[in-house]
Amino acid sequence: MTRDELLRAYRATRDLTLRLVAPLAVEDYVIQPVAEVSPPKWHLAHTTWFFETLVLAVHGARRLDGATQHLFNSYYDSIGERVPQAERGRFSRPTVAEVLAYRKSVDDQLTMLIGDCDAARFEKLAAIVTVGINHEQQHQELLLTDIKRGLFQEPIYPSYAKTEPPKKLPRHTPSSFSSFDGGMSELGHDGRGFCFDNEQPRHETYLAPFALADRLVTQGEYLEFMRDEGYSRPDLWLSDGYAAVRQNGWRAPMYWVERDGTWQRYTLYGLQPVVPEHPVAHVSYYEANAFAAWRKARLPTEPEWEHAANQSNAMADKGTLLDAMIFEPTGHALIGEVWEWTQSAYLPYPGYERPEGALGEYNGKFMIGQMVLKGGSCLTPASHIRPSYRNFFQPEKRWQMTGIRLARDP
Amino acid sequence: MTRDELLRAYRATRDLTLRLVAPLAVEDYVIQPVAEVSPPKWHLAHTTWFFETLVLAVHGARRLDGATQHLFNSYYDSIGERVPQAERGRFSRPTVAEVLAYRKSVDDQLTMLIGDCDAARFEKLAAIVTVGINHEQQHQELLLTDIKRGLFQEPIYPSYAKTEPPKKLPRHTPSSFSSFDGGMSELGHDGRGFCFDNEQPRHETYLAPFALADRLVTQGEYLEFMRDEGYSRPDLWLSDGYAAVRQNGWRAPMYWVERDGTWQRYTLYGLQPVVPEHPVAHVSYYEANAFAAWRKARLPTEPEWEHAANQSNAMADKGTLLDAMIFEPTGHALIGEVWEWTQSAYLPYPGYERPEGALGEYNGKFMIGQMVLKGGSCLTPASHIRPSYRNFFQPEKRWQMTGIRLARDP
Amino acid sequence: MTRDELLRAYRATRDLTLRLVAPLAVEDYVIQPVAEVSPPKWHLAHTTWFFETLVLAVHGARRLDGATQHLFNSYYDSIGERVPQAERGRFSRPTVAEVLAYRKSVDDQLTMLIGDCDAARFEKLAAIVTVGINHEQQHQELLLTDIKRGLFQEPIYPSYAKTEPPKKLPRHTPSSFSSFDGGMSELGHDGRGFCFDNEQPRHETYLAPFALADRLVTQGEYLEFMRDEGYSRPDLWLSDGYAAVRQNGWRAPMYWVERDGTWQRYTLYGLQPVVPEHPVAHVSYYEANAFAAWRKARLPTEPEWEHAANQSNAMADKGTLLDAMIFEPTGHALIGEVWEWTQSAYLPYPGYERPEGALGEYNGKFMIGQMVLKGGSCLTPASHIRPSYRNFFQPEKRWQMTGIRLARDP
Amino acid sequence: MTRDELLRAYRATRDLTLRLVAPLAVEDYVIQPVAEVSPPKWHLAHTTWFFETLVLAVHGARRLDGATQHLFNSYYDSIGERVPQAERGRFSRPTVAEVLAYRKSVDDQLTMLIGDCDAARFEKLAAIVTVGINHEQQHQELLLTDIKRGLFQEPIYPSYAKTEPPKKLPRHTPSSFSSFDGGMSELGHDGRGFCFDNEQPRHETYLAPFALADRLVTQGEYLEFMRDEGYSRPDLWLSDGYAAVRQNGWRAPMYWVERDGTWQRYTLYGLQPVVPEHPVAHVSYYEANAFAAWRKARLPTEPEWEHAANQSNAMADKGTLLDAMIFEPTGHALIGEVWEWTQSAYLPYPGYERPEGALGEYNGKFMIGQMVLKGGSCLTPASHIRPSYRNFFQPEKRWQMTGIRLARDP
Repeated sequence: MTRDELLRAYRATRDLTLRLVAPLAVEDYVIQPVAEVSPPKWHLAHTTWFFETLVLAVHGARRLDGATQHLFNSYYDSIGERVPQAERGRFSRPTVAEVLAYRKSVDDQLTMLIGDCDAARFEKLAAIVTVGINHEQQHQELLLTDIKRGLFQEPIYPSYAKTEPPKKLPRHTPSSFSSFDGGMSELGHDGRGFCFDNEQPRHETYLAPFALADRLVTQGEYLEFMRDEGYSRPDLWLSDGYAAVRQNGWRAPMYWVERDGTWQRYTLYGLQPVVPEHPVAHVSYYEANAFAAWRKARLPTEPEWEHAANQSNAMADKGTLLDAMIFEPTGHALIGEVWEWTQSAYLPYPGYERPEGALGEYNGKFMIGQMVLKGGSCLTPASHIRPSYRNFFQPEKRWQMTGIRLARDP
Repeated sequence: MTRDELLRAYRATRDLTLRLVAPLAVEDYVIQPVAEVSPPKWHLAHTTWFFETLVLAVHGARRLDGATQHLFNSYYDSIGERVPQAERGRFSRPTVAEVLAYRKSVDDQLTMLIGDCDAARFEKLAAIVTVGINHEQQHQELLLTDIKRGLFQEPIYPSYAKTEPPKKLPRHTPSSFSSFDGGMSELGHDGRGFCFDNEQPRHETYLAPFALADRLVTQGEYLEFMRDEGYSRPDLWLSDGYAAVRQNGWRAPMYWVERDGTWQRYTLYGLQPVVPEHPVAHVSYYEANAFAAWRKARLPTEPEWEHAANQSNAMADKGTLLDAMIFEPTGHALIGEVWEWTQSAYLPYPGYERPEGALGEYNGKFMIGQMVLKGGSCLTPASHIRPSYRNFFQPEKRWQMTGIRLARDP
Repeated sequence: MTRDELLRAYRATRDLTLRLVAPLAVEDYVIQPVAEVSPPKWHLAHTTWFFETLVLAVHGARRLDGATQHLFNSYYDSIGERVPQAERGRFSRPTVAEVLAYRKSVDDQLTMLIGDCDAARFEKLAAIVTVGINHEQQHQELLLTDIKRGLFQEPIYPSYAKTEPPKKLPRHTPSSFSSFDGGMSELGHDGRGFCFDNEQPRHETYLAPFALADRLVTQGEYLEFMRDEGYSRPDLWLSDGYAAVRQNGWRAPMYWVERDGTWQRYTLYGLQPVVPEHPVAHVSYYEANAFAAWRKARLPTEPEWEHAANQSNAMADKGTLLDAMIFEPTGHALIGEVWEWTQSAYLPYPGYERPEGALGEYNGKFMIGQMVLKGGSCLTPASHIRPSYRNFFQPEKRWQMTGIRLARDP
Repeated sequence: MTRDELLRAYRATRDLTLRLVAPLAVEDYVIQPVAEVSPPKWHLAHTTWFFETLVLAVHGARRLDGATQHLFNSYYDSIGERVPQAERGRFSRPTVAEVLAYRKSVDDQLTMLIGDCDAARFEKLAAIVTVGINHEQQHQELLLTDIKRGLFQEPIYPSYAKTEPPKKLPRHTPSSFSSFDGGMSELGHDGRGFCFDNEQPRHETYLAPFALADRLVTQGEYLEFMRDEGYSRPDLWLSDGYAAVRQNGWRAPMYWVERDGTWQRYTLYGLQPVVPEHPVAHVSYYEANAFAAWRKARLPTEPEWEHAANQSNAMADKGTLLDAMIFEPTGHALIGEVWEWTQSAYLPYPGYERPEGALGEYNGKFMIGQMVLKGGSCLTPASHIRPSYRNFFQPEKRWQMTGIRLARDP
């Protein structure tokens, strides 16, 4: 990669972040509606803190006041004290204007550094800056899901997007299943381009024959599940899942709002009708699993999913995804609509090794209690999507753009 | 009261509120650091909601969007749904600008209404507008204590006040006690000017002889209590109080911060040194009670305190109090320095009757589990202070401007 | 008091405790259904620990294994470590048999000590042994209310009593109010016989004229309150009270069980019908207060109640109360039916002083957050009842035998 | 299987359960020290409820009072109401004597039924009774771990076992690793004899080459980890694991007690010294994982472990295990010492199908959030152990007999 290429990628990423927050009022930047959702201001500062701490701090003075430094550490225990995640919304200072100035200052310094350093240093810099860019891309999707979660609780259901919601698709074809032969399969990242440590090493695994649905589960199908008392039948659910249903009073996907007997969905376009042809999103692993049981199917495993993705032209033909600012899934591609829950736990690949230093805390330490999601969503930056990507969340989480694709044994 | 007098009082009160929030950044208006502390934005809107709901709504259209109406109800169950107090900081909308516009709109309408109505209606209006003015004065003090609580948690200990902190007093004289004969005493409001329902009816009570300290307990004296292991001696404490000490790790008044072995205090002037001559503030009833036990004294009862106040020239000679924007107690007057914990529970006076309607929820329904505080503080608007005033808080609360005056049996 | 009189009182008290637990299975001694309810085994041991620690330990060896000593300390912080109240049900050892042996051993030693000591020591002993007897009497009532609470949760609603429940009264006369003139009144214990520190000093107070109901509120009257939507009308309730109603789902007194549309009551005689003529019991202060508001009356203050009791022949004519083993209130006497909530907070009398040493923790340290109850109940040992007695509980508590007597302003 | 063989197995299992509780006092049967630990009385009744509900109820009257039926349902939602697990210790009734009578009554009826039924019915009966026997064997191990947990909290650290603790081994040889070639491997139960549904279907999987330790991690080695600040180094831990360390204050395995600077272990033989040669037990998955990281190794996967077990003579040569009543692990066999944490999540095997009916709730619904343990422990009945057995617990659990065997990549 040349210096220009790196700088262009850096600037494009940083700019996209600013475009994403542009529609917000100052007050919106500060709100933390629940513990797992961070205020937009925090995302702006934390992604910048990452560059400052892991790039600039190696070369010079930090610019953020030391007293607030720990506000923007997310989970790097090795880097020092940090504010508990649930308390990120407690702080009004630094203000949004101060955080934006902080972003600019770090951008300026980093640009200078990239331009000025010698070739040897550039190689090292490029590697870590690239991680930082991918890190910020992850936070771009989180920004959108967190903004959505924050605005959702306002009594007026405000719209974030300044554009029209996507149109209904022409009537979708019925779902069918494609069959895959079993056998040995190579999985994990192939080494071309950037990847995270957890996608490595590439390795072989054995797959029994399986079938995978051609399209995602739709809002219409999910509504049938609801109407068939799906949320009241313990036999369909995992034990922890049914406990979550009862404890949280779940009876529909997250963001579904019943008004006068009709279900609507809160989206980044504000309150919208259910579109039976569009994919369902914002379901937990528990719900995905119960839906699959109801359909006498199951969720795919990660190797099955990745094997299928490697063989297909999987990408949503919307082309640019987030860059095109389409905020709801509208088609049924294997990649780029919604994250798809797999039936695989997020655990290390055979031969996986944690990187040394702070980056060792990036992925490896979360390898417990979470399920793998594949595919990327309509909120994922296009350049951040690839079949080997391993996303992961706890099985009860619903505020991400998470949906369902079914699998079956032959 | 004439229309002009009412309008002048109304405008002065509404203006003071705006002056109080003027030093804040937009982000500061939104923060709710703990459940019992409301965001400044909420105070701005709620005091306005009071006038709109209890005055304007009787005469015309409401202007606040119905969907957000319940955001600014505090505790009037009879008026409809409301947001739980602990969740007032969850909302970014309406924005601060929208709330200020809402204030202006209500002010305009109310001004017109006062000017236009006939004499019979004016009399009724004047009564309820006067309640609203006094209500807003209560929120002015809460605004300051809540702002202080919100800024306190910022790592940089920002200063709210744009002025210098008050100077040290000349060395204070030692504390002495004034004796009061027992006998029958008349208590409660005498009917001249405004009072709240809970100050009535005026009634007789019998007092045994008692003595009351000439001055408040100082920061220096409280430091001695701390150094004498006051926080570690269960024999000095009420049972619930000692449990609170252990559970919360209390070892000093609220806002006291130890740095390099020296105690400092967070104030609206930022971090300031302990001033041994100035009154101690931000102590709970439990701490006040334990301090008194340590001094082999006790707290005064409400009748004792009010009896003494009625006999003395009790007012702090700072004269204008809040209007003069002095945010820390500096003298030892019986009124206008700090709220003084009494040993009396907040219960109805003999013959007390709750008003009908929404105002019946103003005071009477809180008559359980709280202790009476008397005197008003340096944060209380001067026109809001009188000896019969009954303030009340739970015994563990510390974020109000609460201090200690000792009493003794002869 | 002679040695024989003391020994007779001691033995009678200790024997009554054993009679009270006689109907239990071994398993029943161990159960702690909720944090505030202690296992019967704990009461047996704790009352014995009191004699051992405050009497025997002054004179010789302790017999209880040091390792378990702290299990039976209730709240004497000055005596050392103790197990949190909520965890008393976590222990199976020492076994019931071991605790009974421990009781016997302490009884034997105390009997010997009383017989053998010289006259000077006897005087001191008699004083503290008398406190211990009164302490154990308090625990006798707690034993019964805690046993009731423990058995209540068994699905089979077992009966504790081996006898028949009391018969219905002949149709009761309508309630009327007796008027009392105001004026100065002497309150507190008069010094004849034993009293606790909190009943002293005797002192004067001034009473405005008032009226007091001739009988207790009945189950039938309370049912009317329930049917009039009493539990759904916020205007009748204190704020904390209405919050408790909603949080706990209260819609009837504690122990009332609805079966096929009919209310029954769990009692020490098992499940029994509502008896409209009998006093209602097991209501919180909140419920008592709301009921009074519904009747446009109020609860009496402690001085009013005590003043009335001093003027009347107040005792239930059942005569022997607990000794007669009648476990439900059946009449309407001022004393000996149910504890009566007063509108007075539990605070020190003017001039009250905490005793020195461990006994200083007996009463004084609870003087916050609780309301005074007067009168004694059908579960209170007869010799433990007197008009100056001050019982106290938090306003939300319902598992004690607590009822309602109304008062009114003239 | 003949009727005699089935009856013999049934009786042997039921008798062993009674032998296991024989050392307890009645009070010990009732205690529930924490939510996840059930009172011994509950185990006695629940295992009997299983036979009554799933065998006898198909053929005749239930004998347990309907009102208490739901007390002993564990988690079969399809069978009706049940008491939350955390509240099993709230009930004193039915008493232990009543539960033992209930056991006897069910035993008598089941014995008669097995003797009397025709051949066709016997076949069906034998299948479900065999499940019941294996179910009771699972509860035998739980009984011991729950009894240990219950007695642990008694201040006197009582010994459960009436025998001497096992002797120290002769000095153990250093740990070494055995290498295994990769390749295809068959896993899951081979169909000979009983197995649970979750061990099926037998299936192929691909293994990369790996190495497995010849012996378990010892108490001595774990002590080194502790001394090397293992509990204070976030880089060794999973994120959730380090949070558990800080939240629970872990600094040693469960049951390790520091006295005068020396670590002891609470065991079923009472308090015992650490034996450096013996395997460490009572560690969570988090601790096992961190220890492995400290040793620059990892935990084995389930397929690796099972592959190795299928190739070895893996059984502890103590021979009879639980039947011999040895309650602590003393050797290093692959099977029969401690359960060994694997790095595999508990998820369905390819092609797994939940059984129909109540047995469908036995295993499948727990397939989320738990890690697989292999091998069986010294508390597992010998006939209940096999290489394909899949035990599973949440990663933070420590009260089971869980230990560590290391694995490595070549």
